[in-house]
Amino acid sequence: MFDVIPTIRFRKGAVEIIDQTRLPLHYTLKRIRTVDALCEAIRNLRIRGAPALGIAGAYGLLLSVEAGWGGKKSFFFDDVDEAGSAERIAGFPADARVSDLRRHLDSTLEAIRATRPTAVNLSWALERMASVYRRDWDSPASLLPALGREAFAIFSEDLEMCRALGVHGAALLSDGDSVLTHCNTGGLAASGYGTALGVVFAAVEAGKHVHVYADETRPLLQGARLTAWECVRRRIPVTVLVEGAAGSLLGRGEVSCVIVGADRIARNGDTANKVGTFNMAVLASRFGVPFYIAAPSSTIDARVADGSGIPIEERPADEVTVIGETRIAPEETLVYNPAFDVTPHALITAIITEKGVFRPPFDFSKEGG
Amino acid sequence: MFDVIPTIRFRKGAVEIIDQTRLPLHYTLKRIRTVDALCEAIRNLRIRGAPALGIAGAYGLLLSVEAGWGGKKSFFFDDVDEAGSAERIAGFPADARVSDLRRHLDSTLEAIRATRPTAVNLSWALERMASVYRRDWDSPASLLPALGREAFAIFSEDLEMCRALGVHGAALLSDGDSVLTHCNTGGLAASGYGTALGVVFAAVEAGKHVHVYADETRPLLQGARLTAWECVRRRIPVTVLVEGAAGSLLGRGEVSCVIVGADRIARNGDTANKVGTFNMAVLASRFGVPFYIAAPSSTIDARVADGSGIPIEERPADEVTVIGETRIAPEETLVYNPAFDVTPHALITAIITEKGVFRPPFDFSKEGG
Repeated sequence: MFDVIPTIRFRKGAVEIIDQTRLPLHYTLKRIRTVDALCEAIRNLRIRGAPALGIAGAYGLLLSVEAGWGGKKSFFFDDVDEAGSAERIAGFPADARVSDLRRHLDSTLEAIRATRPTAVNLSWALERMASVYRRDWDSPASLLPALGREAFAIFSEDLEMCRALGVHGAALLSDGDSVLTHCNTGGLAASGYGTALGVVFAAVEAGKHVHVYADETRPLLQGARLTAWECVRRRIPVTVLVEGAAGSLLGRGEVSCVIVGADRIARNGDTANKVGTFNMAVLASRFGVPFYIAAPSSTIDARVADGSGIPIEERPADEVTVIGETRIAPEETLVYNPAFDVTPHALITAIITEKGVFRPPFDFSKEGG
Repeated sequence: MFDVIPTIRFRKGAVEIIDQTRLPLHYTLKRIRTVDALCEAIRNLRIRGAPALGIAGAYGLLLSVEAGWGGKKSFFFDDVDEAGSAERIAGFPADARVSDLRRHLDSTLEAIRATRPTAVNLSWALERMASVYRRDWDSPASLLPALGREAFAIFSEDLEMCRALGVHGAALLSDGDSVLTHCNTGGLAASGYGTALGVVFAAVEAGKHVHVYADETRPLLQGARLTAWECVRRRIPVTVLVEGAAGSLLGRGEVSCVIVGADRIARNGDTANKVGTFNMAVLASRFGVPFYIAAPSSTIDARVADGSGIPIEERPADEVTVIGETRIAPEETLVYNPAFDVTPHALITAIITEKGVFRPPFDFSKEGG
């Protein structure tokens, strides 16, 4: 079995996450019992990464039933698994109406969706959950187990998707390759295996030696903190660099390819990902280094024709001006802090999903190569 | 008179610097009395910036006479100024020989030169000092005032050069322009006025409104800490961004031009500057945004034909992996931390020096346009 990180789990009526703001110094499991606390965790990036956000959204809806219904302390969902964790559904208020429950879930859904506007997987997972609870159920007792099963399916399908994606991508890597990546796209960004970094993991599991170059990824340093941690944990050699050094590194000819994740992919292949991705794509193109996107197909937003239709989240100024407890810029400083940028499809060599490797012109309606 | 920051001065037998590692939170003047302490200050970037390093090197040679000769507590150089500060030279040991003094200065020179291999201004200033003390002096008492005068000339000429450079460069800016810059090239990087940022200052002094976009410039954050501080101090609006957001910003069409400094310029115009500069040049070129280098002509190294001949300093790993007191990457992480990169001349729109504005093909033997 391949190695999986317990990034996010639903256990004993709560969402359990690794608090990613505390890595790499502290490995802390955090139990989240309310939707408010979950939204806080998403906004403050205790849990982040497009696929992981999808799972968090789905689990958040379970949590809202758990925590928000009638103020009871008892829980309705236990460990969420294939069975939908229906054991305790019997304890649900007998007089509860499906229409009230649906209204409650709808309002929770919007609150969760608003936390991160760019990552389409969050929206996508919430819509999957909505398509379950909006069906014509005769009672909460029949609706709720189905909701639990759907949430678990989103989790477990992600694990399978990442694994399949990894295997497709690994075929692009050769023994001895060096892969430059940006932000964190490993197990911590998903159900536990990862997307772009999952490609590296799958190549290593297939017996190839791969060296990872990790952009530190300012402002929140997911590359230095999380990608390096995951590589060290798996004994994969990893070299961290500041984003400014990426051009210099690519110019030395020591990078075999760049692989990054995605937060949203438009129909034409234009890809929104962590800010700085576009810079790397431009630099890779200059040096003829292949530039790959790796993401589950749920990241493709068929409603969006091209990158100009993707909303870009602006994050708080103090993500840039404060590091730890220390202010690094004068108070009067303005800040430009978009969380994402858009890489035009013309700079992308291939997009790797669980369905295969797509090359230009990107036609996601077909099976990948 | 234009506004000048007391970045580095020779006062009462010591080198006085603003300790730049403590900005923007603390404005601290540090008095340096030994060559060892000066080398520490240079290596740890308490004083940095190519032109400022030249001055530091020259003053370091004075300091070596001051601190290292005969172990006396008295000092030979007072405030260094036009007069060469000869007042106390009479107190110099009567039996001192010029040849001994020269040997002492030679060994100090090599120690200082080794602190930062890329910045050519440091070497250039040290060679200027050497050409003075290697002349045929009849006594230390005649050599030393000339050495003091030369050091002061290096300082005061830099101030004049930066000002002239600023005026040449300011002609390239229009009222309402936005300038993207990298690292710190203001008064703190030079004698007190600056190079690339001096161009902005000169434009503002000429009545133009200019908005500065400052790359924070990892790993040592000179943009966020120093450039923002200098702009705020002069009430010039400044927006800080992470390097990763530069491509996104340039793509929005809100940047009129990029202006950066230089640590060494080859004969063909290839320019070594703070790592990340090359990335910006590539991005600026993609969007057709003019990319200017601003540096005193002493930055041009006529002995070097092109960028491949410029040695690139690698800096310690913990500059990247430790911020303040906090470790941000696992211990086992490798680090790629070059201090500089080289921007090929083909990406440079013009090079601004105190002699004028040079455009391709760069011929520095002629007067700039």
